Amino acid sequence: MSDHNEREEGLSFQPRFDASGLVTCVTTDVATGEVLMVAHMNDEALRRTVATGEAWYFSRSRNALWRKGETSGQTQRVVEMRTDCDQDAVWLRVEQRGAACHTGRRSCFYRKVENAGDGSARLAFVDAERLFDPAEVYRK
Amino acid sequence: MSDHNEREEGLSFQPRFDASGLVTCVTTDVATGEVLMVAHMNDEALRRTVATGEAWYFSRSRNALWRKGETSGQTQRVVEMRTDCDQDAVWLRVEQRGAACHTGRRSCFYRKVENAGDGSARLAFVDAERLFDPAEVYRK
Repeated sequence: MSDHNEREEGLSFQPRFDASGLVTCVTTDVATGEVLMVAHMNDEALRRTVATGEAWYFSRSRNALWRKGETSGQTQRVVEMRTDCDQDAVWLRVEQRGAACHTGRRSCFYRKVENAGDGSARLAFVDAERLFDPAEVYRK
Repeated sequence: MSDHNEREEGLSFQPRFDASGLVTCVTTDVATGEVLMVAHMNDEALRRTVATGEAWYFSRSRNALWRKGETSGQTQRVVEMRTDCDQDAVWLRVEQRGAACHTGRRSCFYRKVENAGDGSARLAFVDAERLFDPAEVYRK
Protein backbone atom coordinates (compact mmCIF):
# COMPACT_ATOMS: atom_id res chain seq x y z
CA MET A 1 0.00 0.00 0.00
CA SER A 2 1.10 3.59 -0.51
CA ASP A 3 1.76 5.68 2.60
CA HIS A 4 -1.59 7.34 2.01
CA ASN A 5 -3.47 4.05 1.74
CA GLU A 6 -1.59 2.57 4.66
CA ARG A 7 -2.60 5.50 6.83
CA GLU A 8 -6.26 5.18 5.85
CA GLU A 9 -6.66 1.43 5.54
CA GLY A 10 -3.83 -0.02 7.61
CA LEU A 11 -3.74 -1.18 11.21
CA SER A 12 -0.58 0.67 12.19
CA PHE A 13 -1.13 3.69 14.45
CA GLN A 14 0.73 6.52 12.70
CA PRO A 15 -0.60 9.75 14.19
CA ARG A 16 -0.18 12.68 11.82
CA PHE A 17 1.04 15.49 14.08
CA ASP A 18 0.74 19.11 13.00
CA ALA A 19 3.64 21.58 12.89
CA SER A 20 3.39 21.93 16.69
CA GLY A 21 3.53 18.15 17.21
CA LEU A 22 -0.15 17.83 18.08
CA VAL A 23 -3.25 15.94 17.03
CA THR A 24 -6.80 17.08 17.79
CA CYS A 25 -8.73 15.10 20.39
CA VAL A 26 -12.53 15.05 20.71
CA THR A 27 -13.80 13.67 24.00
CA THR A 28 -17.37 12.47 24.40
CA ASP A 29 -19.39 11.14 27.32
CA VAL A 30 -19.75 7.40 26.77
CA ALA A 31 -23.18 7.41 28.46
CA THR A 32 -24.82 10.30 26.58
CA GLY A 33 -22.75 10.88 23.43
CA GLU A 34 -22.37 14.54 24.43
CA VAL A 35 -19.17 16.24 23.29
CA LEU A 36 -17.40 17.20 26.51
CA MET A 37 -14.34 18.97 25.09
CA VAL A 38 -11.96 19.41 22.18
CA ALA A 39 -8.28 19.47 23.11
CA HIS A 40 -4.87 18.43 21.82
CA MET A 41 -2.42 15.60 22.42
CA ASN A 42 1.26 15.31 21.68
CA ASP A 43 3.03 11.98 21.31
CA GLU A 44 3.58 11.64 25.07
CA ALA A 45 -0.06 12.42 25.89
CA LEU A 46 -1.15 9.73 23.41
CA ARG A 47 1.25 7.20 24.91
CA ARG A 48 0.17 7.87 28.47
CA THR A 49 -3.51 7.78 27.56
CA VAL A 50 -3.09 4.39 25.86
CA ALA A 51 -0.90 3.03 28.66
CA THR A 52 -2.97 4.21 31.64
CA GLY A 53 -6.57 4.35 30.39
CA GLU A 54 -6.83 7.89 31.81
CA ALA A 55 -7.00 10.94 29.53
CA TRP A 56 -3.82 13.00 29.16
CA TYR A 57 -3.64 16.12 26.99
CA PHE A 58 -1.14 18.75 25.94
CA SER A 59 -2.07 22.29 26.88
CA ARG A 60 -1.11 24.79 24.18
CA SER A 61 -1.63 27.77 26.50
CA ARG A 62 0.50 26.30 29.29
CA ASN A 63 2.84 24.43 26.90
CA ALA A 64 2.66 21.42 29.18
CA LEU A 65 1.55 17.82 29.37
CA TRP A 66 -1.52 17.55 31.54
CA ARG A 67 -3.43 14.70 33.14
CA LYS A 68 -7.09 15.60 32.98
CA GLY A 69 -8.33 16.26 36.48
CA GLU A 70 -4.92 16.53 38.13
CA THR A 71 -5.92 19.86 39.69
CA SER A 72 -9.72 19.63 39.69
CA GLY A 73 -10.15 15.93 40.41
CA GLN A 74 -12.48 15.74 37.38
CA THR A 75 -10.72 12.76 35.77
CA GLN A 76 -11.69 10.87 32.61
CA ARG A 77 -11.55 7.08 32.33
CA VAL A 78 -11.14 6.06 28.71
CA VAL A 79 -13.60 3.41 27.56
CA GLU A 80 -12.62 3.54 23.89
CA MET A 81 -10.17 5.45 21.75
CA ARG A 82 -10.46 5.77 17.99
CA THR A 83 -8.56 7.53 15.23
CA ASP A 84 -9.88 8.98 11.99
CA CYS A 85 -9.18 8.25 8.33
CA ASP A 86 -6.08 10.42 8.03
CA GLN A 87 -4.99 9.89 11.64
CA ASP A 88 -4.75 13.57 12.56
CA ALA A 89 -7.52 13.32 15.15
CA VAL A 90 -8.54 10.95 17.92
CA TRP A 91 -11.87 10.39 19.59
CA LEU A 92 -12.04 9.39 23.27
CA ARG A 93 -15.24 7.95 24.75
CA VAL A 94 -14.89 8.47 28.47
CA GLU A 95 -16.53 8.13 31.83
CA GLN A 96 -16.31 11.72 33.05
CA ARG A 97 -16.01 12.30 36.77
CA GLY A 98 -17.92 15.51 37.50
CA ALA A 99 -17.37 18.26 34.97
CA ALA A 100 -15.04 18.42 31.95
CA CYS A 101 -14.95 22.22 31.56
CA HIS A 102 -12.71 24.52 33.60
CA THR A 103 -15.75 26.81 34.02
CA GLY A 104 -17.38 24.08 36.12
CA ARG A 105 -19.83 22.87 33.48
CA ARG A 106 -20.21 19.25 32.47
CA SER A 107 -19.24 20.09 28.85
CA CYS A 108 -17.29 22.97 27.33
CA PHE A 109 -20.10 23.27 24.77
CA TYR A 110 -22.66 25.10 26.96
CA ARG A 111 -23.77 27.65 24.36
CA LYS A 112 -25.77 27.20 21.19
CA VAL A 113 -24.97 29.23 18.07
CA GLU A 114 -28.19 30.56 16.59
CA ASN A 115 -29.07 32.40 13.43
CA ALA A 116 -29.95 35.97 14.50
CA GLY A 117 -31.86 36.41 11.25
CA ASP A 118 -29.82 39.35 9.99
CA GLY A 119 -26.88 37.36 8.64
CA SER A 120 -25.18 37.25 12.03
CA ALA A 121 -25.11 34.65 14.81
CA ARG A 122 -25.80 34.92 18.52
CA LEU A 123 -25.27 32.54 21.43
CA ALA A 124 -27.74 31.08 23.95
CA PHE A 125 -26.91 29.09 27.07
CA VAL A 126 -27.86 25.40 27.09
CA ASP A 127 -26.92 22.74 29.66
CA ALA A 128 -24.93 25.49 31.39
CA GLU A 129 -25.37 24.60 35.08
CA ARG A 130 -22.10 24.63 36.99
CA LEU A 131 -21.18 21.43 38.83
CA PHE A 132 -18.33 23.11 40.68
CA ASP A 133 -17.11 26.61 41.44
CA PRO A 134 -13.92 27.23 39.47
CA ALA A 135 -12.76 29.92 41.90
CA GLU A 136 -12.83 27.30 44.63
CA VAL A 137 -11.26 24.47 42.63
CA TYR A 138 -8.43 26.32 40.88
CA ARG A 139 -7.42 28.75 43.62
CA LYS A 140 -3.75 28.59 44.47
CA MET B 1 -16.46 41.83 31.56
CA SER B 2 -12.90 41.39 30.37
CA ASP B 3 -12.40 40.08 26.83
CA HIS B 4 -11.60 36.69 28.35
CA ASN B 5 -14.76 36.61 30.48
CA GLU B 6 -16.86 37.95 27.64
CA ARG B 7 -15.65 35.14 25.38
CA GLU B 8 -16.44 32.48 27.99
CA GLU B 9 -19.58 33.87 29.59
CA GLY B 10 -21.02 36.26 27.03
CA LEU B 11 -23.64 35.72 24.34
CA SER B 12 -21.68 37.29 21.50
CA PHE B 13 -20.32 34.83 18.94
CA GLN B 14 -16.63 35.71 18.65
CA PRO B 15 -14.92 32.71 17.04
CA ARG B 16 -11.25 32.54 17.91
CA PHE B 17 -9.59 31.65 14.61
CA ASP B 18 -6.08 30.15 14.52
CA ALA B 19 -3.19 31.58 12.50
CA SER B 20 -4.72 30.03 9.36
CA GLY B 21 -8.11 31.64 10.02
CA LEU B 22 -9.78 28.39 11.09
CA VAL B 23 -11.71 26.91 13.99
CA THR B 24 -12.03 23.18 14.63
CA CYS B 25 -15.42 21.59 13.99
CA VAL B 26 -16.62 18.30 15.49
CA THR B 27 -19.64 16.82 13.77
CA THR B 28 -21.80 14.19 15.45
CA ASP B 29 -24.80 12.16 14.38
CA VAL B 30 -27.81 13.64 16.16
CA ALA B 31 -29.47 10.21 16.31
CA THR B 32 -26.60 8.16 17.77
CA GLY B 33 -24.10 10.64 19.24
CA GLU B 34 -21.38 9.05 17.09
CA VAL B 35 -18.56 11.38 16.05
CA LEU B 36 -18.76 11.46 12.26
CA MET B 37 -15.80 13.72 11.46
CA VAL B 38 -13.45 16.43 12.66
CA ALA B 39 -12.85 19.24 10.18
CA HIS B 40 -12.23 22.98 9.98
CA MET B 41 -14.26 26.09 9.23
CA ASN B 42 -13.19 29.56 8.24
CA ASP B 43 -15.37 32.62 8.76
CA GLU B 44 -17.23 32.08 5.49
CA ALA B 45 -17.93 28.40 6.25
CA LEU B 46 -19.34 29.41 9.64
CA ARG B 47 -21.54 32.07 8.07
CA ARG B 48 -22.90 29.77 5.40
CA THR B 49 -23.55 26.97 7.88
CA VAL B 50 -25.51 29.32 10.16
CA ALA B 51 -27.38 30.90 7.24
CA THR B 52 -28.30 27.73 5.34
CA GLY B 53 -28.56 25.01 8.00
CA GLU B 54 -26.28 22.81 5.85
CA ALA B 55 -22.70 22.04 6.88
CA TRP B 56 -19.95 23.95 5.09
CA TYR B 57 -16.26 23.42 5.84
CA PHE B 58 -12.88 24.72 4.75
CA SER B 59 -10.55 22.11 3.29
CA ARG B 60 -6.93 22.67 4.31
CA SER B 61 -5.64 20.23 1.71
CA ARG B 62 -7.61 21.80 -1.15
CA ASN B 63 -7.48 25.33 0.34
CA ALA B 64 -11.13 25.78 -0.55
CA LEU B 65 -14.55 26.35 0.92
CA TRP B 66 -16.59 23.19 0.63
CA ARG B 67 -20.25 22.33 1.06
CA LYS B 68 -20.37 18.88 2.62
CA GLY B 69 -21.78 16.46 0.07
CA GLU B 70 -21.38 18.74 -2.96
CA THR B 71 -19.55 15.94 -4.83
CA SER B 72 -20.77 12.84 -3.01
CA GLY B 73 -24.36 13.85 -2.26
CA GLN B 74 -23.75 12.90 1.39
CA THR B 75 -25.03 16.18 2.86
CA GLN B 76 -25.43 17.16 6.50
CA ARG B 77 -28.47 19.00 7.83
CA VAL B 78 -27.56 20.91 10.98
CA VAL B 79 -29.93 20.34 13.89
CA GLU B 80 -27.87 22.24 16.45
CA MET B 81 -24.60 24.15 16.50
CA ARG B 82 -22.68 24.93 19.67
CA THR B 83 -19.40 26.63 20.54
CA ASP B 84 -17.02 25.87 23.40
CA CYS B 85 -15.77 27.92 26.35
CA ASP B 86 -12.95 29.70 24.50
CA GLN B 87 -14.78 29.73 21.13
CA ASP B 88 -12.04 28.05 19.13
CA ALA B 89 -14.19 25.01 18.33
CA VAL B 90 -17.74 24.32 17.22
CA TRP B 91 -19.89 21.22 17.54
CA LEU B 92 -22.46 20.38 14.88
CA ARG B 93 -25.21 17.87 15.58
CA VAL B 94 -26.40 16.77 12.15
CA GLU B 95 -28.66 14.50 10.22
CA GLN B 96 -26.14 12.75 8.00
CA ARG B 97 -27.27 11.61 4.58
CA GLY B 98 -25.41 8.36 3.88
CA ALA B 99 -21.75 8.41 4.88
CA ALA B 100 -19.62 11.24 6.26
CA CYS B 101 -16.21 9.79 5.37
CA HIS B 102 -14.60 10.06 1.93
CA THR B 103 -13.66 6.35 2.28
CA GLY B 104 -17.38 5.52 2.11
CA ARG B 105 -17.85 4.79 5.82
CA ARG B 106 -20.54 6.36 7.97
CA SER B 107 -17.90 7.92 10.26
CA CYS B 108 -14.24 8.81 9.74
CA PHE B 109 -13.54 7.07 13.07
CA TYR B 110 -13.68 3.45 11.86
CA ARG B 111 -10.61 2.20 13.75
CA LYS B 112 -10.06 1.69 17.46
CA VAL B 113 -6.69 2.44 19.04
CA GLU B 114 -5.72 -0.39 21.35
CA ASN B 115 -2.93 -0.97 23.83
CA ALA B 116 -0.65 -3.59 22.25
CA GLY B 117 0.71 -4.41 25.69
CA ASP B 118 4.33 -3.55 24.89
CA GLY B 119 4.04 0.21 25.26
CA SER B 120 2.83 0.65 21.69
CA ALA B 121 -0.62 0.99 20.16
CA ARG B 122 -2.30 -0.86 17.32
CA LEU B 123 -5.52 -0.28 15.37
CA ALA B 124 -8.58 -2.50 14.87
CA PHE B 125 -11.48 -1.90 12.50
CA VAL B 126 -14.87 -1.13 14.06
CA ASP B 127 -18.05 0.04 12.31
CA ALA B 128 -16.01 0.00 9.10
CA GLU B 129 -18.57 -1.13 6.52
CA ARG B 130 -18.57 1.03 3.39
CA LEU B 131 -21.88 2.62 2.43
CA PHE B 132 -20.56 3.74 -0.93
CA ASP B 133 -17.63 3.01 -3.22
CA PRO B 134 -15.34 6.04 -3.24
CA ALA B 135 -13.89 5.11 -6.64
CA GLU B 136 -17.40 5.36 -8.05
CA VAL B 137 -18.44 8.54 -6.24
CA TYR B 138 -15.31 10.64 -6.67
CA ARG B 139 -14.27 9.60 -10.17
CA LYS B 140 -13.77 12.52 -12.52
